[in-house]
Amino acid sequence: MNPVPSLANLHFSDEERNTLYRIIASRRDMRHFIPNSTLDDATITRLLQAVHHAPSVGLMQPWRFRRIHDNTQREQIAALVMAERDATAEALGERATEFLRLKVEGIRDCAELWVASVAPDDGTVFGRRTMPEAMALCSVACAIQNLWLATRAENLGMGWVSMFEPTALAELLALPSGSKPIAILCIGQVEAFYPAPMLELEGWRQGGSLETVWIDGGGKLSV
Amino acid sequence: MNPVPSLANLHFSDEERNTLYRIIASRRDMRHFIPNSTLDDATITRLLQAVHHAPSVGLMQPWRFRRIHDNTQREQIAALVMAERDATAEALGERATEFLRLKVEGIRDCAELWVASVAPDDGTVFGRRTMPEAMALCSVACAIQNLWLATRAENLGMGWVSMFEPTALAELLALPSGSKPIAILCIGQVEAFYPAPMLELEGWRQGGSLETVWIDGGGKLSV
Repeated sequence: MNPVPSLANLHFSDEERNTLYRIIASRRDMRHFIPNSTLDDATITRLLQAVHHAPSVGLMQPWRFRRIHDNTQREQIAALVMAERDATAEALGERATEFLRLKVEGIRDCAELWVASVAPDDGTVFGRRTMPEAMALCSVACAIQNLWLATRAENLGMGWVSMFEPTALAELLALPSGSKPIAILCIGQVEAFYPAPMLELEGWRQGGSLETVWIDGGGKLSV
Repeated sequence: MNPVPSLANLHFSDEERNTLYRIIASRRDMRHFIPNSTLDDATITRLLQAVHHAPSVGLMQPWRFRRIHDNTQREQIAALVMAERDATAEALGERATEFLRLKVEGIRDCAELWVASVAPDDGTVFGRRTMPEAMALCSVACAIQNLWLATRAENLGMGWVSMFEPTALAELLALPSGSKPIAILCIGQVEAFYPAPMLELEGWRQGGSLETVWIDGGGKLSV
């Protein structure tokens, strides 16, 4: 699974660097997919390799994916998300109607449906004595971000659906005891990528400026 | 801060896709840096843009970075990490001696030292009613992974140090109330990238095969 040693010291050109930046900038959280599409095994293998090259605390590699094969299970997952969507609308109060107009998932239409989870704790101490759950979780999130960028570079869309009750999803999929599902990932062909985050286009919320990244304005740096 | 609309529907070539895969495969958690190096403002701005293009639950954008400017604070952070390193060695028991031989950070030598934290909760409900802390945390982790790939594409090294007591670090840096620091990020020029994860090279732990990503072997897929 290790990259061949010669890979490690690759020098990237400005053009290659800019390719990465264009992939990062054009990645979107997609909810609209072309129905009845499929991904070939070679593509899926490349995506998995991107996942598995992610960093992880103490080399735990705690990412565990379940691939959903049958439509019955898709429907059950969609129902679980719809239930949480209703609970979210209830919790949102006065923005409930506006919220219910938003498309929040593409579970039925996407080519591939994967559920990403944090593996049962393997007892790793290295790098996570003070933040054991958080660091395992961060490792899985990094793997999902690798996957997200990989799908975009493959000209595929991906959406991370987090509207679900994790214990209910773990039970539905009979995940190993101690597994924590954190993402329902919709992956597949899309007609077009949103020109900006969908929540911005729909007027739900606007992103902040670059300055908000620095807690204190970045000190000497003028960005 | 949004990419220009024309970016969104870029079509990436196989070559560009492979560039991303080579960046992903050659990224390393670095602890060795060339001392007394610096990064120019243009590079730092590109890195920050990569951070800020990350996905986030409900468009929270909860990533907050503190840039460490003075050497006194660097030393204080290094001391905090050394204290946690000792506590980790203690917790590891019989592998303590072996552990203490590993280099776990490059805080004093790296060109830039940034602390990444999760912003104080802004009350966002969208996409995080059932997993509020986890989803904010995952958003910050995705931003850090964007940064990690961006540094690699800039031919810079980065290390994520997680050996610290978060409350002590928040206090040391006087972070805003409710901030959760999750990463001390060492960024800078390196002599060479490790040909494989350092924990593998040092014989601490070996990564698993690609098959471990699937909970159930991936079903029909033969990877």
